[in-house]
Amino acid sequence: MTSAVPKIVALVGAGVIGRGWIRVFAPHGAQVRVYDPNPAQIPQTLAWLEQDLAADVAEGFVTAAERDTVLKNTRGEPDLAKALADADYVQESAPEKLDVKHALFAELDRVAPAKAILASSTSALDIGEIAKGLPGERRCVMAHPFNPPHLMPVVEMLAAPGTDPAILQKACDMLAACGQIPVRMNRYVKGFLGNRIQAAVVREALHLVESGVADAVAVDAVIRDALALRWATIGNFGANHANADEGIAQYFSRYGGSYAMLMEDLDSSSPRFDPQVLRQIADAIEQREGVKGVAAFVRKRDVMVKELNQLKRRHEARK
Amino acid sequence: MTSAVPKIVALVGAGVIGRGWIRVFAPHGAQVRVYDPNPAQIPQTLAWLEQDLAADVAEGFVTAAERDTVLKNTRGEPDLAKALADADYVQESAPEKLDVKHALFAELDRVAPAKAILASSTSALDIGEIAKGLPGERRCVMAHPFNPPHLMPVVEMLAAPGTDPAILQKACDMLAACGQIPVRMNRYVKGFLGNRIQAAVVREALHLVESGVADAVAVDAVIRDALALRWATIGNFGANHANADEGIAQYFSRYGGSYAMLMEDLDSSSPRFDPQVLRQIADAIEQREGVKGVAAFVRKRDVMVKELNQLKRRHEARK
Repeated sequence: MTSAVPKIVALVGAGVIGRGWIRVFAPHGAQVRVYDPNPAQIPQTLAWLEQDLAADVAEGFVTAAERDTVLKNTRGEPDLAKALADADYVQESAPEKLDVKHALFAELDRVAPAKAILASSTSALDIGEIAKGLPGERRCVMAHPFNPPHLMPVVEMLAAPGTDPAILQKACDMLAACGQIPVRMNRYVKGFLGNRIQAAVVREALHLVESGVADAVAVDAVIRDALALRWATIGNFGANHANADEGIAQYFSRYGGSYAMLMEDLDSSSPRFDPQVLRQIADAIEQREGVKGVAAFVRKRDVMVKELNQLKRRHEARK
Repeated sequence: MTSAVPKIVALVGAGVIGRGWIRVFAPHGAQVRVYDPNPAQIPQTLAWLEQDLAADVAEGFVTAAERDTVLKNTRGEPDLAKALADADYVQESAPEKLDVKHALFAELDRVAPAKAILASSTSALDIGEIAKGLPGERRCVMAHPFNPPHLMPVVEMLAAPGTDPAILQKACDMLAACGQIPVRMNRYVKGFLGNRIQAAVVREALHLVESGVADAVAVDAVIRDALALRWATIGNFGANHANADEGIAQYFSRYGGSYAMLMEDLDSSSPRFDPQVLRQIADAIEQREGVKGVAAFVRKRDVMVKELNQLKRRHEARK
């Protein structure tokens, strides 16, 4: 069986979301071409790539040889037609505006070779709308990453009504071959899967703080040092399954009634997002993590997530 | 400064929740007395303790010397008065019935020495009701653990209306000295903090599966391999803070409107908890984790959580 890694990948849009894809594809041998309509963006993105890799090498997460592979396999390409030439997979990461993405997909569909899959990074729009009426609708898919994608491996996948199921499958296979975890949605819903679940957590967590039940560090500790220990290792359904001797069906037959009552008590309105409360939260959690400023905070997260991913991969390999 | 570790701890109720407290207190030098109204429960609990420690020693999480310390510091005591004699801290883990807990607290208050703090493991009841009208209401607190408590270090703390604030502080200090993370609630709400946030996640995750938007493994992957990587390392508010260059206040000033719209779209009814769907979920996640049966599933979770806690402690030590 030949590898499903795409030989040539075109990244269309090289901002924060677009650039993240470089580190998904390039380490696995794909030739990655980085295009942006603003030509000045391209060298900035390549400079970011060098820095990001250098930090990983310094911390031991990436070898010098792995860094060199990524750099060797990545090149900027300010000409869209050249970026798309012979591409097997095109990942669009343009601004979240339907008219922009629709027009761009029409162009990609005209210019990209017939074999190329056209994937959108959209975090909000319906791929059915983006690809609507295009001659090549059959080769259009949504592939929505988390950020940064090589550290948060899940990719939410959705077909347009006219997408060829074999194309969706091939896109999933390509992403899986590059170490990602593609997950399929069966239809469009606002926020897809991840942002919906995140919104549910943000809502309850902020309500608890805004209504004075507990302070932000207390609420966040419950997530960071209790619930998410389960979620990050065995998932939410896994945590439910582990909570009764006979598993999840027994758990909810026993506690479903209590859950239903508790769910009724949750506040379903939007939190106030009070800026003063939010600034206090920022100070409190920076103190908790022992870092100053968002950049240092992000760096700490990324280092810990890399270690956590290593831990999980060791267990995955043992299965 | 003398250590805040309590010298003598009485555990009243030795079921799954009560027994978990042994491994919180005994490793830190507390003398732990294990009482249960059913005398047959006590040797069962001590046998469980030996097994639980043996598994940890076999896997390298606990040294033989640490195991011996826990065993040396723990004894069963079928006589309540003897269990309570000279106790500094009493942890009640009786069934979740208000009349049972209220009567038990009245008895503990009569029998325990004046210096003893009386803490309840209740996961649902209001400590204000449990301690209502007792002569010793001032020394009563809620200390609700996650399970197992030595792996899920957060303890939700709440005072009764008549609790002496110095007693609540002392209980928090004792738990922190034993490696726990006590978090204070300012008033009673159903489900406290953790079960509310968990219910919010369960609701949205099950709705997505029951309504056919995606299958359970897809929904759970979004939690396990994306969102919870952030939550377990930097918390929910930390994840929000890391998501905009100027932090959480900027993040929600930019995206609060999108969140509010998305929150309106979340289904606020209870899921159906359909047993057939739940059994399919069980099969799918056991296959995903490469384990068969709930006991193996729990064991895998515990091993991974221990490793994750070690990872987090290394970062904590670096602050």
